[in-house]
Amino acid sequence: MLAALVACASTSEPLASQVDPLASWNDGPAKQAIVEFVRVTTDSANPAFVPAEERIAVFDQDGTLWVEQPMYAQVMYVLSRVPDVVAAKPALAKQEPFKTVLSGDREKIAKLGMPDLEKLLAATLTGMSVEEFQAQVQAWLDSARDPRWKRPYTDLTYQPMQELLEYLRAHGFQTWIVTGGGQDFVRVYAERVYGVPPEQVVGSAAAVTYGYDKSGKPELTKDAKLILNDDKAGKVEGIHLMIGRRPVAAFGNSTGDRQMLEYTKAGGAARLAMLVLHDDKEREYAYGPAQGLPATKVGTRRRSRAGS
Amino acid sequence: MLAALVACASTSEPLASQVDPLASWNDGPAKQAIVEFVRVTTDSANPAFVPAEERIAVFDQDGTLWVEQPMYAQVMYVLSRVPDVVAAKPALAKQEPFKTVLSGDREKIAKLGMPDLEKLLAATLTGMSVEEFQAQVQAWLDSARDPRWKRPYTDLTYQPMQELLEYLRAHGFQTWIVTGGGQDFVRVYAERVYGVPPEQVVGSAAAVTYGYDKSGKPELTKDAKLILNDDKAGKVEGIHLMIGRRPVAAFGNSTGDRQMLEYTKAGGAARLAMLVLHDDKEREYAYGPAQGLPATKVGTRRRSRAGS
Repeated sequence: MLAALVACASTSEPLASQVDPLASWNDGPAKQAIVEFVRVTTDSANPAFVPAEERIAVFDQDGTLWVEQPMYAQVMYVLSRVPDVVAAKPALAKQEPFKTVLSGDREKIAKLGMPDLEKLLAATLTGMSVEEFQAQVQAWLDSARDPRWKRPYTDLTYQPMQELLEYLRAHGFQTWIVTGGGQDFVRVYAERVYGVPPEQVVGSAAAVTYGYDKSGKPELTKDAKLILNDDKAGKVEGIHLMIGRRPVAAFGNSTGDRQMLEYTKAGGAARLAMLVLHDDKEREYAYGPAQGLPATKVGTRRRSRAGS
Repeated sequence: MLAALVACASTSEPLASQVDPLASWNDGPAKQAIVEFVRVTTDSANPAFVPAEERIAVFDQDGTLWVEQPMYAQVMYVLSRVPDVVAAKPALAKQEPFKTVLSGDREKIAKLGMPDLEKLLAATLTGMSVEEFQAQVQAWLDSARDPRWKRPYTDLTYQPMQELLEYLRAHGFQTWIVTGGGQDFVRVYAERVYGVPPEQVVGSAAAVTYGYDKSGKPELTKDAKLILNDDKAGKVEGIHLMIGRRPVAAFGNSTGDRQMLEYTKAGGAARLAMLVLHDDKEREYAYGPAQGLPATKVGTRRRSRAGS
């Protein structure tokens, strides 16, 4: 199913050359596969030619476009919101899981189960207007720093993948993000960080409800009801809902991306499906297949470890 | 809330002039409002300037881009599928509402209630793969003819609105369809008929389920579970889900479009919100406000008449 495993790990090295659009990629089969794929699909004389309007490339985000270790950035965001949520509703301070989060005890926080996590998601991601939510995320992005790298989370993107996004767009491809993360969360920064506009971000999505604020102005409020669980098979279902075409190229890094890559590959003619291999513990993190472990998602692995 | 009521009714007149991109529009406040809106929002020196990536225009379809009388084209499609559905499951021939539809009795068919209609929708729009559905719709579009005009349904679009779509795109606007009709249905022809690609069609959407066909090939099957009821407030909710930005221009023709127009107008600076007025019974149909009646949707009006 997979065309290649891609080794790429540096976070933000400058381009070695302005001439090569994939300058930070090692010369090897992965880079060659990309260049060859773009060559045949954009040459109208080639049997594998793909018309511009069908050039859809889809990218997982966590672990594919940016660092997902040791914890998803969105989980860090959710935890960071807890003090404000408790300040607004002080009674929560004595209730779980808020009490554990406020304790700052990382081991205990890491052991919180799904029902607790869902309470945290509901308390921090729902109940506010869409604009309030966007402002809260933006404020966090502006101030939060990754504990290891001491830099904004949005700096921790993979330079080779940034080059790939640019390279594909320069050849008429639409580059979509298809993430298990929150659609509304990723949309806040995707355009600035990846050059991907909000309408090309597909993610796990909860409902919003249309209504009017106190002054009678229309507003959308974020609800807890999940519309799209954009992981595994849900990624393909989300692609159909939001794009309505089968992609011709797909990029992921874990079992959560398997169906999306399968579906892309099954489309016929030239198709490209690639996985990021995390094998560089110095410049990023080494985990998954590079360590002889399954390429499961962070959350799944963390939970199964907690359970063992 | 509304900038103007637009009188436009011709179905397919040739352009009177190649110079004026809105040649089939009457000179008047509606046309002036469009031209002025585009002028100020695309002039970077103007306070109402809108950056290209935020130029989102949304269009209702039925009654706004094409004829919705005397019945939605998609309802005609659903009825047309019944003989094939019954041929595959002959026992249905003796069950309602299939029996009534097969009788061809138009009065009885028009009186079918919501539960019956839902049975018809489920039987004709769900259970098959996405590709099978697309092929069925395409076959119908190729062969079906509107009873009054004796032409394919996709010919029955409004020339002034086609010009408006082109005019906005020529000025860097994205033109999205936001329809109460089926998203998968409209996507089959929207690119050819309106120049609107599938990923810019937002419509009422049922879930799809990812799986594998008998040969092990990945496929998506259409389900009956409604994800998005894209009408009234649901249109705004669908815009948030699928676009993630507030539109700057919105076009509709009925109460089903009210919230979408409200939400667009509440965005600040220069915004354009327009309704198509149906006042020409010779070249189209005269109904709604032009006849002193409410601008309700076809289905609603039909049901309330049937109930009176």
